Amino acid sequence: MFPLRQLARHATRVLPACRPMSASAGPMVDVADDGGIAVMTLQRAPVNSLNLDLLQAMSKALDDVAKNKPNGMILTSASPTVFSAGLDIMEMYKPDLKRAEQFWTTLQEVWIKLFGFKFATAAAINGHAPAGGCLLAMSCEYRAMVSGKYTIGLNETALGIVAPLWFMDTMCHTIRTRDAELALTTARLFTVDEALKVGLIDETASDKADAIGKCKNFIKKFDRIPPLARTMTKLNIRRGPLTHMQKIRQADTQQFLAFLQNPQVQQALEMYIQSLKAKAK
Amino acid sequence: MFPLRQLARHATRVLPACRPMSASAGPMVDVADDGGIAVMTLQRAPVNSLNLDLLQAMSKALDDVAKNKPNGMILTSASPTVFSAGLDIMEMYKPDLKRAEQFWTTLQEVWIKLFGFKFATAAAINGHAPAGGCLLAMSCEYRAMVSGKYTIGLNETALGIVAPLWFMDTMCHTIRTRDAELALTTARLFTVDEALKVGLIDETASDKADAIGKCKNFIKKFDRIPPLARTMTKLNIRRGPLTHMQKIRQADTQQFLAFLQNPQVQQALEMYIQSLKAKAK
Amino acid sequence: MFPLRQLARHATRVLPACRPMSASAGPMVDVADDGGIAVMTLQRAPVNSLNLDLLQAMSKALDDVAKNKPNGMILTSASPTVFSAGLDIMEMYKPDLKRAEQFWTTLQEVWIKLFGFKFATAAAINGHAPAGGCLLAMSCEYRAMVSGKYTIGLNETALGIVAPLWFMDTMCHTIRTRDAELALTTARLFTVDEALKVGLIDETASDKADAIGKCKNFIKKFDRIPPLARTMTKLNIRRGPLTHMQKIRQADTQQFLAFLQNPQVQQALEMYIQSLKAKAK
Repeated sequence: MFPLRQLARHATRVLPACRPMSASAGPMVDVADDGGIAVMTLQRAPVNSLNLDLLQAMSKALDDVAKNKPNGMILTSASPTVFSAGLDIMEMYKPDLKRAEQFWTTLQEVWIKLFGFKFATAAAINGHAPAGGCLLAMSCEYRAMVSGKYTIGLNETALGIVAPLWFMDTMCHTIRTRDAELALTTARLFTVDEALKVGLIDETASDKADAIGKCKNFIKKFDRIPPLARTMTKLNIRRGPLTHMQKIRQADTQQFLAFLQNPQVQQALEMYIQSLKAKAK
Repeated sequence: MFPLRQLARHATRVLPACRPMSASAGPMVDVADDGGIAVMTLQRAPVNSLNLDLLQAMSKALDDVAKNKPNGMILTSASPTVFSAGLDIMEMYKPDLKRAEQFWTTLQEVWIKLFGFKFATAAAINGHAPAGGCLLAMSCEYRAMVSGKYTIGLNETALGIVAPLWFMDTMCHTIRTRDAELALTTARLFTVDEALKVGLIDETASDKADAIGKCKNFIKKFDRIPPLARTMTKLNIRRGPLTHMQKIRQADTQQFLAFLQNPQVQQALEMYIQSLKAKAK
Repeated sequence: MFPLRQLARHATRVLPACRPMSASAGPMVDVADDGGIAVMTLQRAPVNSLNLDLLQAMSKALDDVAKNKPNGMILTSASPTVFSAGLDIMEMYKPDLKRAEQFWTTLQEVWIKLFGFKFATAAAINGHAPAGGCLLAMSCEYRAMVSGKYTIGLNETALGIVAPLWFMDTMCHTIRTRDAELALTTARLFTVDEALKVGLIDETASDKADAIGKCKNFIKKFDRIPPLARTMTKLNIRRGPLTHMQKIRQADTQQFLAFLQNPQVQQALEMYIQSLKAKAK
C-alpha cells in the first residue's frame, strides 16, 4: 500500500454521495433469522465504514451464525444508499500501532471467515460498495445488487493505496484476470449494469427486498444438496486464495503497519480528512 | 468426497432418464479408424458407467490408439442417449479395498492419459454426460454435443460427493473459475444451450454423425500443424493440472478409500441403490 | 521448441503479405514525446523482425523512456502493414551460439522490462502482429488495433515451434485459458474482429492515428491515479508470470540453444528460408 500526494485532490471523486442511515446506539451488526437463513445487516452509521469495532462485531457475528448451522447467510446494509464504504480511514490516521495491528488482523480474520464460510453466502448489495465494501460482496458466493446510481469496485489506487494481494485474489476469483487488471489499475467503480456484464455481480434487483429475495432463491438451490459435500466443494475451489492468505498473512500485516508509519502517508491522510470535513460543510 | 444422508432421496433427480444401448457381449471399448482418425466408442451397456473393467479397457485402448499415431481421436458412446453416466456406484458399494484402489488409480490413469494425450482429442457427446461423463468430455480438446434434452456437468455434490481436485482443475481449465464454482456447488447439469454459452462445449450438433463430423473438422485443423510442436504446446498449457495430479495422486487415492470405509457412506449408497432398483421396477 | 519437416511447405500460409516500410539508415527504434507520453516506434525495415540489434535497441529505449518518467508509453510500428513479424529467423539459422544466447536473453529482457514496465503501456497495433509481434502487444496494458486485413496471434506451432512458457503465460494473462489453448495449438491468427471478441485486443481503430489516439485516452485515465499505487498494483497482478520467468529463465535459454543445434531444425530453417527467397522472386 502506498500514499499519494494527490490523494486529497481526488477525495470528492472517490467518495460517492450518500445519505446516512439513521444513527443507531445499538449493535453494529444485526443478525435476524429468515426461515432458516441468517440475514446479517451492517448498521454502523453513517456508511458502514469498516473500523475495528465493526470488524470485531462482524467476526463474532460470523461465529454466532455458524453455530446455528443456517441454510445460508445474506449480507446486507441498514444504510439506504451504501452497502459499505470500505475501510475506515480514521483507523489509519495517527494510529496507535497496537490497535492498527489489531484492526488489520481482524480485517484479515473477517475475510478468512467470510470467504471460507461453511454455509452458503450471498450479498444483497443495496448501495455503493467501493474498496472494502466490494471485497465483502466478492467474498460471498452470490451477489444481487440494487439498480440505480450505485457503484462497486476495488478503487484503492485512486486513493494512492495498493489493494492487498488477497483483495486481488478475491477479484480474480470472481472476474477474468484481464478485467481485474484493468479495474484495479484504473480504480474502476462499475455501474450496476457494468458490474453485471463483467460478472462482478450475478443479478440486478429493483430494491433491497428484491435483492434479498434473489439471494434467498440462490440459497434455496442448496436445499437438495447435501451440506457437507457442498461445503467441501466450496472450500476446495476457494483453496488457492485461502492458502495464499496463510502464506502472506504476517508479511501483509507488517506491510500495512509500515505503510501507516510513512510520513507521506500520514500527510496525505490528513489532507484527505480535511477535504472530507470541508466537503461536509 | 463425502456421503450424505439425503443421497437416496435425490436419486431420481440426479440420474437422467435414458434408453439403454443394446446389450453387447463384445469388448467394452470399440476403436475404429476413420481416415486416420481413431473413433473410440464406449459400449458398456446400458449407460457406460465407469467400472474397473471399462476403465481398464479405456486405458489399454488409449495406449493402442497412441501406438498407431493417428491424426486425432474422437471419443463417443454406443448408447443412443448417454455419453457416460459417470462412475459406477457398484464399485463403491461394499467394496473389496484392493479392487477399489485399483478402480480409483485406473480412473486417475485414464484421465492422465486422456488429458495429456499426445494426439488431438475431441468428444462427440451424443447423450447425457453427468459427473465422470463430463470429466471425460472436458479432458478432450474439443466438444461437440448433440442438441436435445441431454445435460452435462459435474453434479457430484447432489450425490453428497465432493468432486476430486483434478475434476475441479479440469473444469477450471475449460470454463471460468466463477462459473465452475457456481456449477460445482449447485451440482448444475447444463442443458446443451447453457453448456455452449458458458464454454463447457464448443459446438452443438444435430445428431451423432453430425457431432463426429464436427469433431473431425476440428482435428483436420491440425493437418497443417507440425505434430510435435502441437503436442508440446498442448502439454505445456495443460501442465498445471497434470503436475497437480502428480502431487496429489497418492493422497487422492487414500482419501477415496477412507471415504468408502465410512459407514455413513455405505449406508447412503445402500439407500441409493435400493431407490434405483425401486425406480427400475 | 521443436522443428517440423513440413515447415517450408507452410511458409506462404504463415507469413502475411505485407508492404515494407521505407528503408531506414537511422536507429531501429524511434522515441518521441507526445505531451508527456512516450511514443516508441519500431522501424527495422521491412517488417520489424526481432533480431538482436532491434531487441537491444528496444531494451535500451525502454530504459531511456523509464528515466524520463513519462505519463505512459505507446508502442507502434513505422511499417504501413506490419506491427512486428516476430522473431527474425536469421538469428536461428546456422547460428553463432554466443550470439544466439545473447539474442534469446535479450528477448527475455525486453519482455521482462515491457511486461513489468512501471509506466502505463499501450500498443497501437497498426498492422500484422504474428508470434513475437503478438507477444509485444500482449505485454502492454492496452491494445488498439487498426481494422483491416491484419491478423494477430501466437501462431508458432504452424512453424513447428513451441511458444515458450512465458509467451503462454502472457496470453493466459490476457484471454481465457480455454481460448489460449485453442489458439496456441491451432496456430490461430485472429482477425481484428475476432481478436476484439476474444479479448486479445481492447479496441479497433480506423487508422494508425486513431489507434494512437485511443491508446492516449487509455493512458489519460491514469492522470488522476497516484502513480506509485498504480505501478505497485500492476506489478502485483503481473507477479505470477514475472516470477515464473525468473524460475525458468536459464532453462528456457538452454532449451532454445538445444533447439537450434538440432540438425532437423537447421534443415527445416534452410528449407523455409529458401521458400521465402523463391516467394520474393
